[in-house]
Order: sequence, then structure tokens, then C-alpha cells
Amino acid sequence: MNYRELSTPALTVDLDVVERNLDRMAAQCRQKGVGLRPHTKTHKTPEVARMQLDRGAVGLTVAKVGEAEVMAAAGLDDILVAFPVFGGEKLWRLAQLARWRRMLISLDDEATAVVCSRAMSEQGVTLGVLVEFDVGFHRCGLAPGHSLVELAKKVQKLPGLEFRGLMTYFGNVWGTEEERAKEAEQVAERVGRALAAFRESGIPVEIVSGGSTPSAQFADRVPGLTEIRPGTYVYNDLNTYHQGACKLEDCAARVVVTVVSTAVPGRAIIDAGSKTFSSDLLGSGPMSGFGYVVEDPGAPLVKLNEEHGHLDITKSKHHFRVGEVLTVIPNHVCTCVNMHDEFFLRRGDEVVGSLSVAARGKIR
Amino acid sequence: MNYRELSTPALTVDLDVVERNLDRMAAQCRQKGVGLRPHTKTHKTPEVARMQLDRGAVGLTVAKVGEAEVMAAAGLDDILVAFPVFGGEKLWRLAQLARWRRMLISLDDEATAVVCSRAMSEQGVTLGVLVEFDVGFHRCGLAPGHSLVELAKKVQKLPGLEFRGLMTYFGNVWGTEEERAKEAEQVAERVGRALAAFRESGIPVEIVSGGSTPSAQFADRVPGLTEIRPGTYVYNDLNTYHQGACKLEDCAARVVVTVVSTAVPGRAIIDAGSKTFSSDLLGSGPMSGFGYVVEDPGAPLVKLNEEHGHLDITKSKHHFRVGEVLTVIPNHVCTCVNMHDEFFLRRGDEVVGSLSVAARGKIR
Repeated sequence: MNYRELSTPALTVDLDVVERNLDRMAAQCRQKGVGLRPHTKTHKTPEVARMQLDRGAVGLTVAKVGEAEVMAAAGLDDILVAFPVFGGEKLWRLAQLARWRRMLISLDDEATAVVCSRAMSEQGVTLGVLVEFDVGFHRCGLAPGHSLVELAKKVQKLPGLEFRGLMTYFGNVWGTEEERAKEAEQVAERVGRALAAFRESGIPVEIVSGGSTPSAQFADRVPGLTEIRPGTYVYNDLNTYHQGACKLEDCAARVVVTVVSTAVPGRAIIDAGSKTFSSDLLGSGPMSGFGYVVEDPGAPLVKLNEEHGHLDITKSKHHFRVGEVLTVIPNHVCTCVNMHDEFFLRRGDEVVGSLSVAARGKIR
Repeated sequence: MNYRELSTPALTVDLDVVERNLDRMAAQCRQKGVGLRPHTKTHKTPEVARMQLDRGAVGLTVAKVGEAEVMAAAGLDDILVAFPVFGGEKLWRLAQLARWRRMLISLDDEATAVVCSRAMSEQGVTLGVLVEFDVGFHRCGLAPGHSLVELAKKVQKLPGLEFRGLMTYFGNVWGTEEERAKEAEQVAERVGRALAAFRESGIPVEIVSGGSTPSAQFADRVPGLTEIRPGTYVYNDLNTYHQGACKLEDCAARVVVTVVSTAVPGRAIIDAGSKTFSSDLLGSGPMSGFGYVVEDPGAPLVKLNEEHGHLDITKSKHHFRVGEVLTVIPNHVCTCVNMHDEFFLRRGDEVVGSLSVAARGKIR
């Protein structure tokens, strides 16, 4: 079936592009001598995670226990829950996972370590712990230095926990290549400071986990880094493109839509809005619009309602007509994929299958 | 169970508040002499739609065929698909629904009417049609006047379709009460123009459907209006509140979250981000932030990542600690609900049940 015959709106992913994206990142990590632990939040699909592991990924990353459960149930192993999980029910489930899978968690607070320790001890399991530090994104993580070492020491003393290393997120490495290179320098300095504190204290650090898609090319400029956790690279999106971290043809995920109204002058309305794309803004490049219309980039997707997308066609020479099928590259593919129960696999224009977004909506 | 014992993040809905909101809108519509056809896009839950019908709603509104299927399967009837559905597979499904339910569709283009007619004729069913016109929101709909009448005449001639009336959306009635009252005047004038054109042509118009939650109070200022389609009023949200169209205590939907990190100075991080709230911005009042923190409105939710929410606590006197449970009123409840597979029913602090968001993700 040709993708234009799909009932719309439909999320499609081009497998040729995915394979190329995965091969490229795997090769880059090998070349830079850093492990790859892809963040599955982008695809939320065990079959795609398997493709990543088959290409040599050292393990997987998830944000929530529910995502880990989906990956574990599919037979996948060595899963980092890169989130300071807090709450008895979720930690009980994490302990169950730790019975049969190699599990890691990140945390930055003694209170989290204590509740984790209690949950694991009660189930007689051991959970690997990465202590999180902040390199400039200012979200989670202690400052690189003394307090970080102190938390690691506390983790070492708590039953059911095993201190395995450090984690940070390079979310501040964002923007043009020049901006990213500059931030990567700062990141390297802060990672160095954290590692120096651990060297001084004599505590061995097995894992140093960092990264993101826009920072991946700078991984070898961060001494001591053992692995990176990019997510978006599997599909890429308009944000990745506008940062110069991929080409348009590397954007594997495209939403197939239909023009449903041209009644209002200057507008063409498509059958996909914020409940199909997510309402994430563009955080790079032109900083406006909700997606890239492949068939006519001169007709920007200027506004989303829940089920309607507004194309501004005032400057377009294309004659938009009701019933016409278009394809749109989303601003942010991770939140877009999370709107969909399923997606369709393509090789070029041909639809070759479909997969469930099995970890969609797993917020706990 | 107390709501604070829920595994977080969890969407909760207070039934006392919902019942009050539903009673109030039902009474208002009765008093204004206008029918109520609530838009189910807000709750996507047949059990809640049933509560609306039990209070005298004349029917239901949905945006997508998949939503109509969920409502129809639950035994609900008289469903307007307020969307110009285009595409063979979706229209075939709509025809199946029309076999056993009273179904209506809105459209604004002859091409849509033609494909609808073909799909209905092939299945031997008849679909009610509302022809859509624009009163200032500039999304779908023809201008009120001659072309609208011409489209209605075409619909009248097409097999499988029955022209039932007109539809418009009062999306431009937005903002403060004063701004909304002013826009409502314009809307009334445009609805009047449409009806005048039909009177002139001698075509009877049975249904004139309009409305939205922020415009509901002005329904009686629009002569000829037979029904309104508010959605948000069932739960309300921060946008409704900041427009003065509800009080904070009328906001029934609240997301229960846990503070998971306080490691970065000036920040408290909660375990809910754009995959829990949606990333919809605030389109009213202060126009910033991603939700209202009930326990400390002085700690604004300034930023969302996918699974993290950033509270700016620099101006708060509250001592935020890891493990603390908070509740957040979302900016836009319709997109927030759509992130969740289920939600928990409360009466005050007590959790009294849970329901599936059965029509979640029904984008086709």
C-alpha cells in the first residue's frame, strides 16, 4: 500500500531512514569510544529498541517504571530508569523488574535513596544507582563536587542499592553547532570536576552517563564519559534539523494528513492538530510553526487546535484542495509519537507494516 | 483511599465539582432556551457523556469518527461529528454508525459532501448534514451568505445526505468577559446574516449549532441559535478560570504529582511534564506557566520537559521537599486528559473510583 492510501492522520516512520540513523549513531559512538544507551522515550517501541541493541547499544534508557516494564516484558535487558523515582507502588514495581533484569536508577537526594533502598531490601533485590549531577541544564542533579560524593557514600551504605556511577543530562547543549560546541566545553569542565571529586575520595566510578542527541557529536570532548543517552536521533525532527544535527532526509517520522477545509481565504485546514502532533513549539531555527509541510514548505503550519492544523497559504503558489494528502515533519518527535497508539512503517512510499507504541502514556 | 496515596502522576477529577458544573450549564441552557450538545473531546469518557445526557443534553459532539464509535458502543445516541471527515475508511465507519445511531456531520466543501454521499449511499444509510460557516475564528466554514446556501442546496440533492442545518464555532469569543461580550455581538450579527440568506432562499434550517465554553453565557444574545457545544465546562481549567468563566473551585481536574528533586537551587522538580499535562500554553490571564500549583500558587510551573515539571521556587516561602505530593490545575484540560489512559474519581480528598479515557487517542 502507498502511504497516501492510509486513513489520516497517521504517523509513519521510514525504516530505511531509521536504519541509517541507527547505523550512523552506533558507528559514531564506536569511533568516539563511548557506549550508547539510547533513550527509548522517543519511540516507546520495544521492536525499535531491539534494533538499537542489535547495533551494539550497551543498554536502554527510560524515564518511567512503566516504560521499563514494557521493554523488560519484550525480553530487553540492562535498563536505566533515568529518573529519581519516588513512591511505594512504583518502587515495588521497579523491585519486581530488578528480579529478572539488570536495572539502574538515577537519583540526587538522600530521601529518594532511602525509599529505594527500603523497597529493594523488602524484595531482596539489588538496584544499581547512578548519582545525578547538573552540568548546566538546571533540572535535576547536585552540583559536581563534595555533596555528590557524600550522596554516593550514603548510597554505598544503604542495603539493596549498589553505587555504579554518575549520571548527568546535556540538555544545555542546544542550538547551532557553534553554540553547542561552546556548551560542550562547559559540560566537559563540570564532568571533570565531578570525576576529580570522586578520585580524591577514592570511590571508583564505573559508569559516567551523559548526552542527548544534539550533544552526541561532542561526546569525545568530555573526558571520562563512558556512555551517552540520545533519544531523538532514531527518528530526528524539526528541532534536530534546525540545530544542524541532522538533514531533512534524516527525519524518519512524518505525519500523513488530509486537507479538510479551504473555505476560509488564506487558510488550508488539515485533519491533525495538537492531539496528533503535540503542541510543542519549535525551540530552534525560526522558533515558530508546528511542523514542516514536505509538499510545500511555503505553507507554514502556523496554528494547531486539538484536531485541526492551520496552514497559512497566503504566500504559497500551490493550489490546496480538500481531500489532498500532505506529510508533515513534527517539531518534536518524542511528544508527537506519544500521541499515537500505533504507527506505520514505510520504505519510501510503500507501507510495509505497523507497530504499537507499546509504552505510550506510561507516565508512572 | 486519600488522593495523596495515589501513585503519581495521576489525573484526578472531583465528581462533586463535575456534577455542579454539569448542573449549572444544563440550567443555564434551559433558562436561555438553547439546546446543549456537549463536546466530548474534553473528557473522552462515555460515563461522563451519560451524565451530560441524563441532565437533558440534546445529543453529543465529537471531532473524530473514532470518538463517535466509542460513544455509540457505550449506548449513547444523537452524535454530531463536528468535523469535515474526508477519507474512504473513516466514512465507511461513519456509515456503519449511521445504521444504528442518529449521526450528524458538519462540512463546508462540495468535495466533502460528494465523498460523504457516496459512502452513505453505498451502505444504504442517511447522514444528517450541518453546513459550516465562519463567524470570525477563521478555521473552517464558509462566509455567512450566498455560497453557504449554494452548498446546502447541493447537499439537499445528494443521495445519502439530509440537510439539517448550520454549524459554526465561537472560538473567537475568548478573553475577558468584556472582550467576549463584544465578540459575541459580532457572532450574533454573522449568525443573523447566515439565517437571513436561508430565509431568502426559502430553505428551512432546523438546527443552528454554535458555541464553546467561554461563549456559553452569551448564547441568548445570538438570535436563532438552537444549540451550543461547550466542552471544557465539564472540568474547567486554568484558561476558563483566567477568562472569568469559572472559579478555581470549579476546576474539577487536577493532576496529583510528587516532588522528585530539589537539588538545583531555586527549583523543585515534579514527576509530571508535557507527557502528563500536554505542552499547551496559557492563552489567557498571565499568559505564562503550565499549570496552577494548588498548594503554593507562588511557585509557578515555569517549564515542562517530557516527564519533568520545573517549579520556580525562588519567590516561595514554602519549603519544598523530595517526596512531597502536590496538585496542579492544567492550562488546558482537553489536551491534558488526552494524555491519560485513565483517571481517578474523587469526592473531596477521597478517591472513589477510576474510569478509562476510552476515546483517548482516537484521532481518526
